[in-house]
Amino acid sequence: MSLIRQDPTTKEWIIIATERGKRPHDFSKKKGSSSVQTRVDSCPFCPGNEAMTPQEILCFQNQEKNGWAVRVFPNKYAALSAEGEPIRREEGQLFLEMDGVGAHEVIVESPIHNLMIPMMDETEVEDILRTYQSRYNALRKDPRIRYVILFKNHGEAAGTSLEHPHSQLIGTPIAPMLSRRKYEVAIGHFDDTGRCLYCDVVEQELQKKVRVIEETDSFVVFHPFAPKQPFETWIAPKVHQPSFGKASRKELTELARTLKRTLYKIFQALGDPDYNYIVHTAPVEDEEKPYFLWHVQILPRLGTIAGFELGSGISITSVSPEESAEYIRSFNT
Amino acid sequence: MSLIRQDPTTKEWIIIATERGKRPHDFSKKKGSSSVQTRVDSCPFCPGNEAMTPQEILCFQNQEKNGWAVRVFPNKYAALSAEGEPIRREEGQLFLEMDGVGAHEVIVESPIHNLMIPMMDETEVEDILRTYQSRYNALRKDPRIRYVILFKNHGEAAGTSLEHPHSQLIGTPIAPMLSRRKYEVAIGHFDDTGRCLYCDVVEQELQKKVRVIEETDSFVVFHPFAPKQPFETWIAPKVHQPSFGKASRKELTELARTLKRTLYKIFQALGDPDYNYIVHTAPVEDEEKPYFLWHVQILPRLGTIAGFELGSGISITSVSPEESAEYIRSFNT
Repeated sequence: MSLIRQDPTTKEWIIIATERGKRPHDFSKKKGSSSVQTRVDSCPFCPGNEAMTPQEILCFQNQEKNGWAVRVFPNKYAALSAEGEPIRREEGQLFLEMDGVGAHEVIVESPIHNLMIPMMDETEVEDILRTYQSRYNALRKDPRIRYVILFKNHGEAAGTSLEHPHSQLIGTPIAPMLSRRKYEVAIGHFDDTGRCLYCDVVEQELQKKVRVIEETDSFVVFHPFAPKQPFETWIAPKVHQPSFGKASRKELTELARTLKRTLYKIFQALGDPDYNYIVHTAPVEDEEKPYFLWHVQILPRLGTIAGFELGSGISITSVSPEESAEYIRSFNT
Repeated sequence: MSLIRQDPTTKEWIIIATERGKRPHDFSKKKGSSSVQTRVDSCPFCPGNEAMTPQEILCFQNQEKNGWAVRVFPNKYAALSAEGEPIRREEGQLFLEMDGVGAHEVIVESPIHNLMIPMMDETEVEDILRTYQSRYNALRKDPRIRYVILFKNHGEAAGTSLEHPHSQLIGTPIAPMLSRRKYEVAIGHFDDTGRCLYCDVVEQELQKKVRVIEETDSFVVFHPFAPKQPFETWIAPKVHQPSFGKASRKELTELARTLKRTLYKIFQALGDPDYNYIVHTAPVEDEEKPYFLWHVQILPRLGTIAGFELGSGISITSVSPEESAEYIRSFNT
């Protein structure tokens, strides 16, 4: 018998239908396609090809190696761009539209073409996270931008065909409905209990332990109760903090180590799966409020989003988080 | 410059970023993989292999051809099953869970292995729609089922690896959050205006015409103002009716013709793309209320759902509905 569960942060339902799927180790696939080349002549993100990208916004230098460590520039095929004002226009009585004003940036994570986060030094991962935070804090000051999302697409099923390790950032002039929805639910919880919903989720996971992968000084890594994809993983701070922009240097150092370890376990357990991760943080105007906890959500793309999921918004996953967590814990080193 | 638009039925924002993508005709792809065989020995949905599927629930006979026309049976790998009661259980203070009680059925649309809807006779398509309605009306009487969704996955990107034409039906013991959300928005509109939001959308599309593909006696086919995928297409009745279960025989005959024509144009224009379609209908308890209009939503799977879309709920599409509608209209016959 399958299970139906509710995500406490959105009240969305999901279905865990293990009969459909496989045991956790069956999800592992060997991708033979990863490049062994450290530099590719035609890659626009490789050193020497800097002129193939738009003008740099930010560049972290690597003093020892006498070159850049992380580069940020506007996405060449930007979904949103920095010019203009997001002024609403109406078409008839029902339809709202505005110009695509905002930000869309690419963060190249390393000069080395085939160096994925699990294989980087911790300091290299920390440079990426400091770049994220620096760009987030710069964009949150733009009065046109209401919401900033940092994300990574790894592999074709996750939405990228570029192998060179990179992440992206999009700043939108509107707060997404999904974010508003999370706030409605979290404010309801706060009104009922006087506590942050996300902190309560973290606390309950730490008590139950069955879905926890790892606990560090400042973070907990766990598979959420109602996952949207098999092996969905959250990395969340143990102390209330709505904004990623306010994470301390010490926390970023620890997050770098934790993110690297977590992605390494996923790499080992699932054979370099395609995945997305998303840094969720409070909308700009809610950074000081007691409703949200910033966190990293990792979504291995092991299931297809088909007609039922698109039509109903209900995800079907084929492994329970208790089972996937147990399997990932067996890769603890 | 890209555009940001709001879906008036959910208040979700989407981005139309044409710079990223291609012109409408660039979306066409020739799939060489479609089978030319009318029967495949190993296919569980082909005639003669009926014993490979679970016990039939419903079977439409074809009198002339002395065999079945449409078959319905429970999904062998059911996400939800008909046994038990959907009783909520709590884990701690935050987490809700219940057994996977409901319905999950497969509708085999034709005995012929490679006969897709665009190539069927209109009466064959009508048999499929009558089967949908018959199963919908049977399941809506089950007091455990709160929501029924009929959908089709065509092609691997849309979530199926089985080529033999088939659709599915899932009945859930809960109303999805997405459906609740649509009602919140539609009830707000009704309170403000005294009218059905969806009927107002249809009326406005018919006035503007720029996104309309075709108008028939009872239906309008259009590309919605804020599409989630390139070439998203809606087929909606022109007269208010919340429930697909109450469509008349005459309407089903006309829908069969309209669905076949619409899918044929998509087939021609885009080269047999992978797609999903979904029959959206009111939740069981809201079938008599003035808030919803049943409709068919067709989603060609021409874009990837990547980290930004998953994290924010905002879709990015690479062709405007005005442009895609103009292109599809050029295939009017």
